Amino acid sequence: MSKTILVTGGARSGKSALAESMTLGLGRPAVYIATATIWDDEMAARVAEHKARRGPEWHTVQEPLDLVGALAASDGQGPRLVDCLTLWLTNLMLGEHDWRAAGQALCAALPEQTSPVVFVTNEVGLGIVPDNALARAFRDAAGTINQWVAAASDEVWFTVAGLPMKVK
Amino acid sequence: MSKTILVTGGARSGKSALAESMTLGLGRPAVYIATATIWDDEMAARVAEHKARRGPEWHTVQEPLDLVGALAASDGQGPRLVDCLTLWLTNLMLGEHDWRAAGQALCAALPEQTSPVVFVTNEVGLGIVPDNALARAFRDAAGTINQWVAAASDEVWFTVAGLPMKVK
Amino acid sequence: MSKTILVTGGARSGKSALAESMTLGLGRPAVYIATATIWDDEMAARVAEHKARRGPEWHTVQEPLDLVGALAASDGQGPRLVDCLTLWLTNLMLGEHDWRAAGQALCAALPEQTSPVVFVTNEVGLGIVPDNALARAFRDAAGTINQWVAAASDEVWFTVAGLPMKVK
Repeated sequence: MSKTILVTGGARSGKSALAESMTLGLGRPAVYIATATIWDDEMAARVAEHKARRGPEWHTVQEPLDLVGALAASDGQGPRLVDCLTLWLTNLMLGEHDWRAAGQALCAALPEQTSPVVFVTNEVGLGIVPDNALARAFRDAAGTINQWVAAASDEVWFTVAGLPMKVK
Repeated sequence: MSKTILVTGGARSGKSALAESMTLGLGRPAVYIATATIWDDEMAARVAEHKARRGPEWHTVQEPLDLVGALAASDGQGPRLVDCLTLWLTNLMLGEHDWRAAGQALCAALPEQTSPVVFVTNEVGLGIVPDNALARAFRDAAGTINQWVAAASDEVWFTVAGLPMKVK
Repeated sequence: MSKTILVTGGARSGKSALAESMTLGLGRPAVYIATATIWDDEMAARVAEHKARRGPEWHTVQEPLDLVGALAASDGQGPRLVDCLTLWLTNLMLGEHDWRAAGQALCAALPEQTSPVVFVTNEVGLGIVPDNALARAFRDAAGTINQWVAAASDEVWFTVAGLPMKVK
């Protein structure tokens, strides 16, 4: 079983930059598995900014839903960076897929990997309880997915102001 | 004076599971002091899920307001888990009680306990400043209560993705 | 180059009290550089509470925008506490100033300081994604400023429930 790492933190806390650095530290070239689906200009700008930072050592794959398939297809091609679980969960919930089943299948697939996997995720549960039920359901699901993947990971890092704190 | 522990973290970060495990590590059977008042189906479902996880080693007490009384009544019956301070504060504020006086009375009662007490609380102050004044007042009060109880505790833990980080 | 410290955390997490204690530990008397602009009674009450806690060892300066100038003017007068970067950023954005240029100028000025500087800032990116674009832009900017100042600091602390966790 290869190494699995989870990098979590708030918005603009340096998660992606840390995870990219860790992934390249595990092997080059690396595979970037983007879960973002581009639905507006704000998201397009963010994706473009991330891609410009990464440079030529990365092979980029876009997979909004089937992470198990994307990991299977890229295994053996170098370390994989999945950025990020929170957008993946958003895609699952918007498409009315069973996110619990998908999360369990993802964790079940991790022991089979021969190349390392680094996951980026977001902490979204440290503010005031949201007014609407959908946002509450989303933050509950996000916290649950984070717990499952953290339990299945060898290392877990929490980023604050661009700096890593070791959780596991 | 017996041991006092505070477990804090975001929504679905694994606070309750960690606190339950710590409480049983301090003695069995244990007393679960629930501060939740069940006002809708969403809350009922969450309470039922927590209760199903706990099992028969727990004696459950429901006390939405008088934590000092609940601690006095259960002292000597095993370690107590208070879950959680944030709902207790919500109950105090909705009932227009003096939460500052209640918080100070709670901290003043801790040195008198002969059985351990483990508190669960929520971090709610790490998001964008809320639009409405009531939510801002609540998060200020929650942060203040957390500081007071943390100062009165022997150990403080911050949970991230189901994993504990030692704060004190 | 003198010491630079960043203290970050959520609302009512004990950031200011910790930063005040650290600043006085670096020398007395100290200079308090307040970035708050008082636009309502809620803010006036918060500023008054902070000022009452500080006492006579502090010389207070109010500077909502020009932190580089305030640091230059106070250098040599003792350690400086800037409270806080999040309100400074708010002032910059409300006044339609270039916050990126201001942030880079601030970081560029730090190596020139002969007296220490302690910064207080807020974590605002750990809740649900805000509904409105302005709040999202603000939390992105706040996270970016925090990363820049953290990179330029010798020490970074994250406060939880009034207690410090060392990040750097």
